[in-house]
Amino acid sequence: MNKYGKNFEIYYYDVDKFNRITPLSILNYLEETAISHSWSVGLGCEELYEKGYAWVLSKWHVEIKRYPSFKDKIYVETWASSFDRYFANRWFTIKDEKGSKIISAASQWILIDIDKRRAVKIPKEISDCYGVVDEIATDESFRNFEKIEIDENKRKYEIRRSDIDTNGHVNNKKYIEWIIETIPDEIYENYYLSSFDVLYKKETSYGHSIYASYIEVKKDENSVQYHHVIRLDDDTELARIYTKWIKRA
Amino acid sequence: MNKYGKNFEIYYYDVDKFNRITPLSILNYLEETAISHSWSVGLGCEELYEKGYAWVLSKWHVEIKRYPSFKDKIYVETWASSFDRYFANRWFTIKDEKGSKIISAASQWILIDIDKRRAVKIPKEISDCYGVVDEIATDESFRNFEKIEIDENKRKYEIRRSDIDTNGHVNNKKYIEWIIETIPDEIYENYYLSSFDVLYKKETSYGHSIYASYIEVKKDENSVQYHHVIRLDDDTELARIYTKWIKRA
Repeated sequence: MNKYGKNFEIYYYDVDKFNRITPLSILNYLEETAISHSWSVGLGCEELYEKGYAWVLSKWHVEIKRYPSFKDKIYVETWASSFDRYFANRWFTIKDEKGSKIISAASQWILIDIDKRRAVKIPKEISDCYGVVDEIATDESFRNFEKIEIDENKRKYEIRRSDIDTNGHVNNKKYIEWIIETIPDEIYENYYLSSFDVLYKKETSYGHSIYASYIEVKKDENSVQYHHVIRLDDDTELARIYTKWIKRA
Repeated sequence: MNKYGKNFEIYYYDVDKFNRITPLSILNYLEETAISHSWSVGLGCEELYEKGYAWVLSKWHVEIKRYPSFKDKIYVETWASSFDRYFANRWFTIKDEKGSKIISAASQWILIDIDKRRAVKIPKEISDCYGVVDEIATDESFRNFEKIEIDENKRKYEIRRSDIDTNGHVNNKKYIEWIIETIPDEIYENYYLSSFDVLYKKETSYGHSIYASYIEVKKDENSVQYHHVIRLDDDTELARIYTKWIKRA
């Protein structure tokens, strides 16, 4: 059994004005549980850093059935599902106090050599620490992102000190926060984010500006879907994101 | 005994690139503990809202002796120290695992009538729920802020959806995050924030821009002090802030 789980209580600063946990806080809990898992098998950020490595996130697929509220208690569980030369895959589930699965996610990670700043084959000594659990958390997995050129609905952000994590780069979760800020008021007020996919292409650091832009891909009576692109000020593509929003009851 | 305490573990998303908890996260823990205290005496946000009231923060005085790091465990304790017609005073301490006091704070709150949007005398039925503890957490308390006009070192922020809390207004903690973004690189990289004072003057909401500006007040070999002002796009003063930074060893 190589699953790892952690209990959390939803704090006041985790919820938005609708008293629902923010997508940013969901990712905080997933990240925290993944890091604690690594820590528990002796591969915390520091140990990994000493070996000359760091994990970098490559893909997310996240499905949200129900948003917990302030004071709710949740249980986050995670496990490695495969190690495939350059890629490590990790599943997540979040359960509420009754044990119902309310959030599921798939993630893909790349191990990089810190000095060379490039991907390395994952050493067996590292994958062996985690082990592999042959169980899925969601029926769907990573989206195939076609190349998308979007110049519409652009918003500029200057990277803040608070966007930077211990790796010295913009934390991947910030991309989700930025794109949520860009969508139209009517959608933000009346819909909830029910799923999203992210493909991370490049990392970035303090001192830059980024542009988040989106186009509407599909809309029907109860839902709307967007493609989002995040670009650096020099036009380098940093991430492609796909979001699906469902009308609140 | 009317003290209230809560244990927290420092998560990865609480720390900055120096692996130190951010001042924003410190305020998150203080806020969470104050809200939990209210909740525990039957005066959670919802119960208070049903009575037609909400607490609004008026002043902070925060002293940070040592910043905890990722995975550290802390204990946050809080108590009401006085109820003075319109003002409620609340102390805080944060202790590390050895029981040493590493952070102390004083706060002043105003009770507002939600419909009239103005301060009301604190009803005895409310202050009685909390009780009062005659003990101080810091020798210093609230700063007397003279009126300060600052037009230097201005930075503009567009208020984001993620800045808004369940009251529908910009959460008071965001002011601290904004002013930390404005200080010079040399100070951010080589100094730590050792204390700060905030006087909140007006609240604001989504759709506005704000300006954060500062002047250096005092500098010696090992420390630097700033006055900061936060203004709305129409020039309304929202907050005055005073920060003290000490050179890292």
